[in-house]
Amino acid sequence: MRELGEFGLIARMNAGRAQAPDVVLGPGDDAAVIAAPAGRYVVSADMLIQDRHFRLDWSSPREIGAKAIAQNAADVVAMGSAPSAFLVSLGCPADTTVEFIDGLVEGLWAEAGRAGGSIAGGDVVSAPLLVISVTAFGDPAGRPPVLRSGARPGDIVAVAGRLGWSAAGLAILSAGLDCESCPELVAAHRLPCPPYEAVLDLPRGTAVTAMTDVSDGLLADIGHIAESSGVAIDLDTGSVRDETLDHAAKLVDADPLAWALTGGEDHAFAATFAAGQQLPDGWRRVGRVGAGAGVTVDGRGWTGLVGWESFTGGG
Amino acid sequence: MRELGEFGLIARMNAGRAQAPDVVLGPGDDAAVIAAPAGRYVVSADMLIQDRHFRLDWSSPREIGAKAIAQNAADVVAMGSAPSAFLVSLGCPADTTVEFIDGLVEGLWAEAGRAGGSIAGGDVVSAPLLVISVTAFGDPAGRPPVLRSGARPGDIVAVAGRLGWSAAGLAILSAGLDCESCPELVAAHRLPCPPYEAVLDLPRGTAVTAMTDVSDGLLADIGHIAESSGVAIDLDTGSVRDETLDHAAKLVDADPLAWALTGGEDHAFAATFAAGQQLPDGWRRVGRVGAGAGVTVDGRGWTGLVGWESFTGGG
Repeated sequence: MRELGEFGLIARMNAGRAQAPDVVLGPGDDAAVIAAPAGRYVVSADMLIQDRHFRLDWSSPREIGAKAIAQNAADVVAMGSAPSAFLVSLGCPADTTVEFIDGLVEGLWAEAGRAGGSIAGGDVVSAPLLVISVTAFGDPAGRPPVLRSGARPGDIVAVAGRLGWSAAGLAILSAGLDCESCPELVAAHRLPCPPYEAVLDLPRGTAVTAMTDVSDGLLADIGHIAESSGVAIDLDTGSVRDETLDHAAKLVDADPLAWALTGGEDHAFAATFAAGQQLPDGWRRVGRVGAGAGVTVDGRGWTGLVGWESFTGGG
Repeated sequence: MRELGEFGLIARMNAGRAQAPDVVLGPGDDAAVIAAPAGRYVVSADMLIQDRHFRLDWSSPREIGAKAIAQNAADVVAMGSAPSAFLVSLGCPADTTVEFIDGLVEGLWAEAGRAGGSIAGGDVVSAPLLVISVTAFGDPAGRPPVLRSGARPGDIVAVAGRLGWSAAGLAILSAGLDCESCPELVAAHRLPCPPYEAVLDLPRGTAVTAMTDVSDGLLADIGHIAESSGVAIDLDTGSVRDETLDHAAKLVDADPLAWALTGGEDHAFAATFAAGQQLPDGWRRVGRVGAGAGVTVDGRGWTGLVGWESFTGGG
């Protein structure tokens, strides 16, 4: 890293890469230029800190890079928008190896491509620990943004993607268990796999009234929809039961339902659909919107830890 | 900070703030939505790390916040675009005081407003040291982007803004001198003041052929224009002489010309104008574009340190 220098590193990050169609001007000038065919664009930013959001002994460089993109792409997709480009600012120690950077960059580009975008630029600075800060850009693609505030009583609550797998994988790793005991959960923690297509392929005219990605846990994120929309939401535990979680929970003496309801970082999508709307491919019903306020589980209050919040949470 | 939590902190950052006109949807959902009336937009990102890009004993929280915005806004303006919005991702220790955050946020908003934009969202995470990552968005406002690659032999090289003041202020602080001996230089280091209006008020039709902001030092940044444009540039030392720098240089036994030519972080703007173009308000001539390659000073090679680069530089 010290040998490459900032400019050498940036050149290495972009060598041989093709930019996505919406990137009018990529890296190399003071700023990048992105197309906004809809006359507006969607933006979101997240920061990942070493030993807090990832651990070098638990994740490969490629997985860390892909995860950083995935969580930002999920925010853009949760607005109903198609990811177009990403900026990545990287803080890293001077003794970071070129192999590490190559792996990280490979992961950044791989997940950006899966989401439909490219790495259009960023910044590289020296820092005492790894910091990865990503901004994601999206094109509304002809749809008005799907906000958290549009849920109405009578709507169906549905989820696309996994719930609780990342949290379960983290518990397996934290307990020091052999990763082979639940390889799919450990993999889900190392590399979330947001089902972008479940949102981006929604047929035109689908009556989706509110949407968010599940980054802090289903209860917490559904709670944001309930609060923003001024409605109550009841979740049905029968619909979030998962045999894979049940199996892992026995190994580490945990509650699989707590993983499914409060585990963050899977970046599933949670949405509400108008009553009568047939659920599109990839979506499963997990609850119902009613009048009132707050989130209940099988008609009752949930007494466990709700979601995950920086500074006060357990993460 | 621990008491407020992530969501309380985000609420505090945005309470009572008015978004800029181009911000269609501000903080509070999965992502923000920004208008792009030109059908394209300009984006740039920079990361600031505590004790590398700022020191808590040398700068106030307000100055740190303003500096973080200024250096990003300058990148957008250097493309000839008008800043519209900023995303700010903040990593901070759990014991960070609310007073510190309030000052930082005040500085972020103040400089965003000076540049013509607002803080449209971001992220807050816990980190062992302060990390401030900013993404700036700009509207081309009817102009094609002014790239680094458009300089042609015969063009005039000109600068708007200060050169070397931030570097001189840093030298004064590093030497432990009384800040009162050169208060304007110390202030320039703590809070760069890019002359956005010198670019944004350029009369339509001004023949500006290439532009960049001076973040790494005039020689280095003019070098980027020379390289991208495939031209040679000769700078005239007579035009960058500065009595304020001369005075300070005597105090710390430094070379005032080295500050002016290689000092970074003032975020002046350097541009090339077609021969015969009368220089607009706020711009002064510092050199000339010729055929060939590389940057010379008074017709000769410069032998001092060229600019500032992460990992290999002196910063």
